[in-house]
Amino acid sequence: MVEQALVQELHMDEALEPKLSESMKYSLMAGGKRLRPVLLMAAADAVGGDGDRFLVTGCAIEMIHTYSLIHDDLPAMDNDDFRRGKPTNHKVYGEGTAILAGDALLTLAFETMTRQKGVTAEAVVSVVKEMSIAAGSNGMVGGQSIDLESEDHAIDMDTLRRMHLGKTGALFRAAIRSGAILAGASEAQLSALTRYADDFGLAFQITDDILDVTGDEAAIGKPVGSDAKNHKSTYVTLTSLERAQELAASAVQEAMDALRDFGAEAEFLRELVSYLLKRKS
Amino acid sequence: MVEQALVQELHMDEALEPKLSESMKYSLMAGGKRLRPVLLMAAADAVGGDGDRFLVTGCAIEMIHTYSLIHDDLPAMDNDDFRRGKPTNHKVYGEGTAILAGDALLTLAFETMTRQKGVTAEAVVSVVKEMSIAAGSNGMVGGQSIDLESEDHAIDMDTLRRMHLGKTGALFRAAIRSGAILAGASEAQLSALTRYADDFGLAFQITDDILDVTGDEAAIGKPVGSDAKNHKSTYVTLTSLERAQELAASAVQEAMDALRDFGAEAEFLRELVSYLLKRKS
Repeated sequence: MVEQALVQELHMDEALEPKLSESMKYSLMAGGKRLRPVLLMAAADAVGGDGDRFLVTGCAIEMIHTYSLIHDDLPAMDNDDFRRGKPTNHKVYGEGTAILAGDALLTLAFETMTRQKGVTAEAVVSVVKEMSIAAGSNGMVGGQSIDLESEDHAIDMDTLRRMHLGKTGALFRAAIRSGAILAGASEAQLSALTRYADDFGLAFQITDDILDVTGDEAAIGKPVGSDAKNHKSTYVTLTSLERAQELAASAVQEAMDALRDFGAEAEFLRELVSYLLKRKS
Repeated sequence: MVEQALVQELHMDEALEPKLSESMKYSLMAGGKRLRPVLLMAAADAVGGDGDRFLVTGCAIEMIHTYSLIHDDLPAMDNDDFRRGKPTNHKVYGEGTAILAGDALLTLAFETMTRQKGVTAEAVVSVVKEMSIAAGSNGMVGGQSIDLESEDHAIDMDTLRRMHLGKTGALFRAAIRSGAILAGASEAQLSALTRYADDFGLAFQITDDILDVTGDEAAIGKPVGSDAKNHKSTYVTLTSLERAQELAASAVQEAMDALRDFGAEAEFLRELVSYLLKRKS
């Protein structure tokens, strides 16, 4: 569903410059788990809404995620040549176009949020606010900046935590809160789901660090052990593989606890966070 | 007024990473004519509104403009070392931080739009839509992509026109339309102001090209004749200095005509477009 909707929201036919559009499409349609749109729709389901109705806003957050990957891979940032087994955007289209494709996807994300049908304008404004705060200098971009400043030297656990809260946690939080807001969540529901989101983000990051050590190269789309090779501090390098596995399991348990007042309609959110302990990519 | 409000909207105290915040502030507070916020507020005045009330949204569009300059100056784009007589963002903070500072300013712009007080949520959503369409792949970023693809080879007048419509025209249009929308413009007023905006953008670009030939280095903040040196096609190189001056004067006249049904409340918009023929920077 997300794949189809993303192509539609790209509005390829209206493009001012064909190479730019191609480059945007290349990264947006390069696969991935579409976890953020899925979380957004599952959070709406969890408060008794119909998550599918918010697919458009789900596409918007996937655009933000994709833009961040394009910019993150640039030579001035992580300097990665491959992502999910395919050449990174700048390797195919050049650095200039890759920068612009990221810029355009971020901008298109906000346009796409305004296309959400069947909700009040107040709800759309709330979503724009959630997303922009999460994606900005106090969220995702802030986390990337900590990452950039931490290159080639060890960081402590507190800095690592702040970095990930920004870099990946903030957008998970925005996905889940936006879905809940669109579906008309109560304050209590929104607060419980926010706790779920933060624990989900933590479990996601720890299991990501574990996969870098224990994962299968073909499944994770990058060489195993690349974090250690790049002298990156992770939950595994700062503690141990065993301790990281314990921390992940504990975060998953916290996320489950946060959902205790929800019924069967939150079952998919429970499955999603449990799956993190078994993820292969 | 704009200078003061910009510092406030940056929310420097909340920053996740100090170097990123510094870098955002460096470019945002590096001067400039603040033409887009001024146009936004003047358009609101022109339809009988109180333009000052929309200063916050004016700050948002200035953030979009600033982000575009930071990314435009990057080595992979125009590779400029100086802007307004000061070292460009990446020369001071490095490429990685400059990319992130641009990303963060674009994101902050959308957050800032949601902070506009005293208007309906519907109006805020309209502004987010106007700004995102103008700044995206069919607007500003699209124009920059045409520019990037046109490097080191001549382009024809039609391509030049399309490039500038995107690169600079779209944001002028969004500034003026957003101010008018926030102030509750009628359809007829919005349509007249849109024509004004497009003529304003054209006159701005032609006079920019003229300044590159006739300007004073200290005033324009870059070497005179840099367009010709960089083999850039401009209104001057594609026609002649005299013809470009005629075209600029004609665009200004068209802009004045677009305002003929407005009274004294549009006087500042008239002055602004007339000033383009006399501008020194």
